[in-house]
Amino acid sequence: MALEKDPRQLNVQVNPPYPIYIGKDLATTVANTVKSSKLAIITDSRVKALHLEALTKALKVAGKSGQAYEITPGEDSKSFETLSQVLSHMAHDGFDRGSAIIALGGGVVGDLAGFTAASFMRGIDFYQLPSSLLAMVDASVGGKTGINLPEGKNLVGAFWQPKGVFIDVAYLKTLPDSEFRQGAVELFKHGLIKDTSILEDVKKTEFHKDGEPEFLADLIARSVKVKADIIAEDEKEQGIRAYLNLGHNLAHALEAASDHQISHGDAVAYGLAFDARLGLQRGWQDISQETLEFLRWVNPKKLPVTEFAELEPFLKRDKKNKDGKMKFVLLKHLAEPCIVDDLSHDELLEAWDFLVNQ
Amino acid sequence: MALEKDPRQLNVQVNPPYPIYIGKDLATTVANTVKSSKLAIITDSRVKALHLEALTKALKVAGKSGQAYEITPGEDSKSFETLSQVLSHMAHDGFDRGSAIIALGGGVVGDLAGFTAASFMRGIDFYQLPSSLLAMVDASVGGKTGINLPEGKNLVGAFWQPKGVFIDVAYLKTLPDSEFRQGAVELFKHGLIKDTSILEDVKKTEFHKDGEPEFLADLIARSVKVKADIIAEDEKEQGIRAYLNLGHNLAHALEAASDHQISHGDAVAYGLAFDARLGLQRGWQDISQETLEFLRWVNPKKLPVTEFAELEPFLKRDKKNKDGKMKFVLLKHLAEPCIVDDLSHDELLEAWDFLVNQ
Repeated sequence: MALEKDPRQLNVQVNPPYPIYIGKDLATTVANTVKSSKLAIITDSRVKALHLEALTKALKVAGKSGQAYEITPGEDSKSFETLSQVLSHMAHDGFDRGSAIIALGGGVVGDLAGFTAASFMRGIDFYQLPSSLLAMVDASVGGKTGINLPEGKNLVGAFWQPKGVFIDVAYLKTLPDSEFRQGAVELFKHGLIKDTSILEDVKKTEFHKDGEPEFLADLIARSVKVKADIIAEDEKEQGIRAYLNLGHNLAHALEAASDHQISHGDAVAYGLAFDARLGLQRGWQDISQETLEFLRWVNPKKLPVTEFAELEPFLKRDKKNKDGKMKFVLLKHLAEPCIVDDLSHDELLEAWDFLVNQ
Repeated sequence: MALEKDPRQLNVQVNPPYPIYIGKDLATTVANTVKSSKLAIITDSRVKALHLEALTKALKVAGKSGQAYEITPGEDSKSFETLSQVLSHMAHDGFDRGSAIIALGGGVVGDLAGFTAASFMRGIDFYQLPSSLLAMVDASVGGKTGINLPEGKNLVGAFWQPKGVFIDVAYLKTLPDSEFRQGAVELFKHGLIKDTSILEDVKKTEFHKDGEPEFLADLIARSVKVKADIIAEDEKEQGIRAYLNLGHNLAHALEAASDHQISHGDAVAYGLAFDARLGLQRGWQDISQETLEFLRWVNPKKLPVTEFAELEPFLKRDKKNKDGKMKFVLLKHLAEPCIVDDLSHDELLEAWDFLVNQ
């Protein structure tokens, strides 16, 4: 059966549950699934040029109207300025509580569109059509939406679950190679946390953006399921949702220390290797080779900082720390994460030296 | 027993439930009840001058810190500009997910502070200390928070329930008389919808801002209970919460038609008399005398519009209309509201002529 006619479906068990469809050429599936007949499509100029036409055409066939709101690509659009502009336009154009928003784009579009949906008239429905691999495997599950402040990223937002997510693997073909590799980092992370079959598949030749749609859809589905299962147990980040933070302490510190000159994917790829080394130092399973091999495949920019003294203050300032304690996720074994909050300066320094000398 | 030591308490049964304390001189109660030790107090310059000192002093005694953020009094502060400023200041000043917000003020402060709490780091705790009678009996229950757009009022916001509300009747003494009467309108409305004992008490001489604290606390408690019971059944405004809209169709139309030159309380007072007349025209209980008598007590500004043709387009544009139908709440009998969506032009015109000729 063709993937476009029968996309895979998995349900995220939050309240209320929502479906994630994974397939190829899903515009018609989107148009038939969304409940509202008046839709605001928030997208950026790059994605708009590639995918908007097919979507609006399908909506029209289904008797629904889609009006596009275009934002500038890039992190700077996660701002109060862009948010208030989109909201004003929607109010002016007669959107109401029965309308819905479709996020057509990557993480920036998803975060902004989600918060727009959460706050327009105190909350309307929203759907996601992620255009990047990162948005497909990460941002499409979890309900985190938001914008940035000059004081920091994602400091303003809401937990707002979509009513449906449509992962169209055909979109991957239009993704730059480097962006595909960035997205693969979170996918690989889900493999480490919970589903080791992912780690094997990431090494296969079919795993690239022009790969077999069936293979990609299957692999993405397994990755999404890891996150969906965790979110279902811990929607508001009180407990095990922290496992998803594997590799992210170092990543956030690298991003902050370099004023975001390093990309998130690169930073997390370093973070996964760093955390693997920390686990090994505690005598746990040695997975440093897997993570280093993957790091080389990602081909990240070089580390923006080399001195640990430069990095340490940023590690200590992570917004997930509590009562001044750094909270790390480490792996005792593959697929067996645990939370560690007693890492010493020396342990961190040793792992850092290891990473710098790779 | 003194009211300051033993405030009345009632619980609003949303998920999770929260307590409303009603008493006199509650600063110490507030300080001992709030869970966080780092508090942002959002207030306006007028209320700040009257009530901030006692609150921060009590917090200090309880080992907690309260930092005040002052906004300009008035509706214009329900803006993206003020919201983003407060959020940035809070981020800069080191507030985190464990911090909480106290709204110290009237409806504007409550709406803005509530939305600030809903969106700071995707949601932190928030407490309300309403300073006006209107905020005490209306805004303190229901979880509606938000700001305005140039395109309309309250178009952006969130449902965000407080963790506690503290109604301090001593605050009423500092309220201008006219504002007290404005607040009495929603209180009277609660009497019409569900608790007729309120209607009797509103006529009593003790019912003014310098009235007996016991009497005021008791009356406010009954009014709050009417709204709390309705919200508990219908938090997200799917059904019976609509009853709270009694008098509000005409009110919103008057506000919009006059570009908000009429106050909300005045507008609702007219709306209650209008709705009473509509019910009478359908052969239901005649409560037009009660509502007209109350309207005279409120002493509203005169009607900003006299021609029905001027008003009708605004009635038809109410954001609570659905599929183009006007949805009114009318009373079959006192304390027996029902929803009516088939009012004819002629019925509305007749009731309007009646009101204009009072």
